[in-house]
Amino acid sequence: MKNAVVLLSGGMDSASLLHYVKVKLRVRTIFALSFNYGQKHSCELAMAKWQAKGAGVREHRVADIRFLKQLLAGASALTDNSIPIPDLSDLSPAERSQPVTYVPHRNLILLSMAAAYAEAKGCTSVFYGAHAQDAYGYWDCTRKFVDDLNRVLANNRRNRVVIRAPFSGISKAGILKIGTRLGVDYGHTWSCYRGGRSPCGSCPTCSERATAFRQLRLTDPLR
Amino acid sequence: MKNAVVLLSGGMDSASLLHYVKVKLRVRTIFALSFNYGQKHSCELAMAKWQAKGAGVREHRVADIRFLKQLLAGASALTDNSIPIPDLSDLSPAERSQPVTYVPHRNLILLSMAAAYAEAKGCTSVFYGAHAQDAYGYWDCTRKFVDDLNRVLANNRRNRVVIRAPFSGISKAGILKIGTRLGVDYGHTWSCYRGGRSPCGSCPTCSERATAFRQLRLTDPLR
Repeated sequence: MKNAVVLLSGGMDSASLLHYVKVKLRVRTIFALSFNYGQKHSCELAMAKWQAKGAGVREHRVADIRFLKQLLAGASALTDNSIPIPDLSDLSPAERSQPVTYVPHRNLILLSMAAAYAEAKGCTSVFYGAHAQDAYGYWDCTRKFVDDLNRVLANNRRNRVVIRAPFSGISKAGILKIGTRLGVDYGHTWSCYRGGRSPCGSCPTCSERATAFRQLRLTDPLR
Repeated sequence: MKNAVVLLSGGMDSASLLHYVKVKLRVRTIFALSFNYGQKHSCELAMAKWQAKGAGVREHRVADIRFLKQLLAGASALTDNSIPIPDLSDLSPAERSQPVTYVPHRNLILLSMAAAYAEAKGCTSVFYGAHAQDAYGYWDCTRKFVDDLNRVLANNRRNRVVIRAPFSGISKAGILKIGTRLGVDYGHTWSCYRGGRSPCGSCPTCSERATAFRQLRLTDPLR
């Protein structure tokens, strides 16, 4: 593949994806796209920048959609300061199917913009780091979501863009394994939803990150 | 229907839709959403504001996604100052299936954000003014696009939002007929893509607007 857009949050999964796309899929020209949507953990964007530079992308854009924070007032713990980020252990089984850390339609918004960016740059692929483990709580991380969205994009009459989620059947530990082999520096990735100076260790994404490192008997460089 | 989001550009179609949703569908609480995406004709936003106020909406938001203009550099005559807006008569039949006035994935982006807004406000419907006539040149104005997008949104596990496009089978003249009966003030709508001080009269949307008024033997208050 000649060129592609990679959706890059600055977390473990998308950083791994970036290097996977570059090294394994040998995509020569990469356009990386990140978003400031008013997330509490916007410190992830500095990591995105570092990773994009390290991977030698052609261009890295950080799109400013902070107005989303206002639009979604009261609707998500990731963007609303009055809603605390829960610990993973606080979430009941019922809540886990769509937890308060879900941001309404966020991934559809980001992928739509990534598809627009791809079309403008003459790319036919957008790479998206959704994985099997996130599918538990987020409908917009599932394989079915990606397939259905691709059906929408297929209506484009000229420059059809396809969303590719090569990690959609892989766990977080599986991604970490792939990334470690590719030499990804996880010390320059950010996961914690609370967005403090150091990871909290107990929010849903910190917990899952810790589990992945433990499963592979690796030490997280951020700890 | 108790409440809904209406996508409001400030053009004829969405202004008609707003009043249709209010009067014909008797939606009591309306949230109107407009976008500044760096369009040359951003003067339409003043019309959107006027129409929203006239319809007594609960809230009218203008989302700032002007960075899209940069992301789409070189890709659309609607956002790129170096690409002139063509006259309708300049477009060859081949060009008309996706003309240079097409903005890559714009409607998918706007609808994704409208769906997010709806979910946050507890609405299950987003009204969208796509109509039969625009389907000629814009894949993201077709009935099939709306149906496919609704299949994506149906994956939401809790607050499913549906895109409703009641004008999708109706021509621009048909919409004008409906709106005229509802008392819509078309002097406070904006169509011209060129965004000058007065409508140019020859760009694709001015031409279609003129045709609609002519078909109904009405005088456009903007002329």
